[in-house]
Amino acid sequence: MKIKRSERLIDITHYLIEHPHTLIPLTLFSKRYESAKSSISEDLTIVKETFAKRGIGFLETLPGAAGGVRYVPKMTPEDVDQFITDLCEELNHSKRLLPGGYVYLSDMLGDPKWLRRIGRVIASQYMDKRVDSVMTVATKGVPIAQSVALYLNVPFVIVRRDSKVTEGSTVSINYVSGSSSDRVEKMELSRRSLDMGSKVLIVDDFLKGGGTVNGMISLIEEFNSEVVGATVIAENIFNGERSVTDYTSLIKVDKVNTKDRTIEVTPGNFSLD
Amino acid sequence: MKIKRSERLIDITHYLIEHPHTLIPLTLFSKRYESAKSSISEDLTIVKETFAKRGIGFLETLPGAAGGVRYVPKMTPEDVDQFITDLCEELNHSKRLLPGGYVYLSDMLGDPKWLRRIGRVIASQYMDKRVDSVMTVATKGVPIAQSVALYLNVPFVIVRRDSKVTEGSTVSINYVSGSSSDRVEKMELSRRSLDMGSKVLIVDDFLKGGGTVNGMISLIEEFNSEVVGATVIAENIFNGERSVTDYTSLIKVDKVNTKDRTIEVTPGNFSLD
Repeated sequence: MKIKRSERLIDITHYLIEHPHTLIPLTLFSKRYESAKSSISEDLTIVKETFAKRGIGFLETLPGAAGGVRYVPKMTPEDVDQFITDLCEELNHSKRLLPGGYVYLSDMLGDPKWLRRIGRVIASQYMDKRVDSVMTVATKGVPIAQSVALYLNVPFVIVRRDSKVTEGSTVSINYVSGSSSDRVEKMELSRRSLDMGSKVLIVDDFLKGGGTVNGMISLIEEFNSEVVGATVIAENIFNGERSVTDYTSLIKVDKVNTKDRTIEVTPGNFSLD
Repeated sequence: MKIKRSERLIDITHYLIEHPHTLIPLTLFSKRYESAKSSISEDLTIVKETFAKRGIGFLETLPGAAGGVRYVPKMTPEDVDQFITDLCEELNHSKRLLPGGYVYLSDMLGDPKWLRRIGRVIASQYMDKRVDSVMTVATKGVPIAQSVALYLNVPFVIVRRDSKVTEGSTVSINYVSGSSSDRVEKMELSRRSLDMGSKVLIVDDFLKGGGTVNGMISLIEEFNSEVVGATVIAENIFNGERSVTDYTSLIKVDKVNTKDRTIEVTPGNFSLD
């Protein structure tokens, strides 16, 4: 039986969303629906226009024998701005203030609705670059890394402060913990989890002095790999010189008054432009 | 300008996939496309048929003023069986064998392609039940909990063995670690992260003696909450009586020979029937 265009459009949409950042040959669809390539091309034009109009993302078409179509779930700069405004609004509440000037984020980092948007926003900054792996440190960074990795469709790796038997052999480094200037700590990564020569994107929840991010950079060097960038959700107040300067942050904690229990959160330096 | 059916079908598909397990009133779509409810109903019939035919999931239609449509991304029993077969095949390799008879899973638990399927399979077992929250223990369980939570569209919470300043106040319990019969350990959960009276689904990577799952059950009781079920990826070999009997596992590690470096993995007791 001939498969109707309406069915093809629905199934193509689902397939593309499940396979972001992946080059899909047109033959996959023409076989899947037993349809001519010309019909599939017409379908993809409709999908492409709708995706762009509705902010779902971009469809890149690569011509030729090795060509196909690739779904890039990049957000528009306007949608990113809207998200960061929403994030600041959500966080500007005294109930989120924790001892030490930290902000309570755990609920958002466990909420699929926020995680989908956080992942897509951060991934959007790196969609035009080659990223082989997303890296974070356990535990709080894991949901962020996973969300970003879903939209980039690449693996993520978890650096740990304590190793586990289920990790196999590891590579470890020492790093200077940012907050208390000369406390030296250890972090390690499973040897199998990262290939030598990878391009790595670092993500984390907070950045204070930058010690943790710096530790991950050292670890990436141990794997003869390269840092593509570093993005954190929140940049905390820090009195002193940070050990990392090259990073982007979605938001900035500007003022915290633990006595009055007030907090002021503003947009960070993150931007798609 | 009138919005065409083809555009509506593509956007509805994307919207439903981004909002699983959520009752969406038909008025949302009719406003979004400035279309009559009758046209939207026709659209949804086409989407429903295609989702069922292509194994994308089920569309539940609830009639009446408070009604609408709900996308349930439940897998078919055949697709679940296929997934578990693929999982066994992937794990039946000597290179995955770790000291102590553990199986190396970290690569899969960091790979979006596997995580999408793991999350959808486990979530499928609980789609007809009320689940308010998915619970796991740090660190290895986190990606599993997040994937399951994405498909159930509910929050997930992370139990920790050490607390962090960014968690706020916590509730802690002591539990007997399963492997070394009488070692007592501590686990804790942020007070804000779980509401009293919640229905909680427990997920984890491995189950050996059951001590960790048992600890989470005690913690759930401390929050006057209820366990909906417990599912692990892999059930390890355990000589002795488990402290938990009511759980499902995707796979079972049957035989491990660390001398010959052989491993035998078979399907667990997980089933949708």
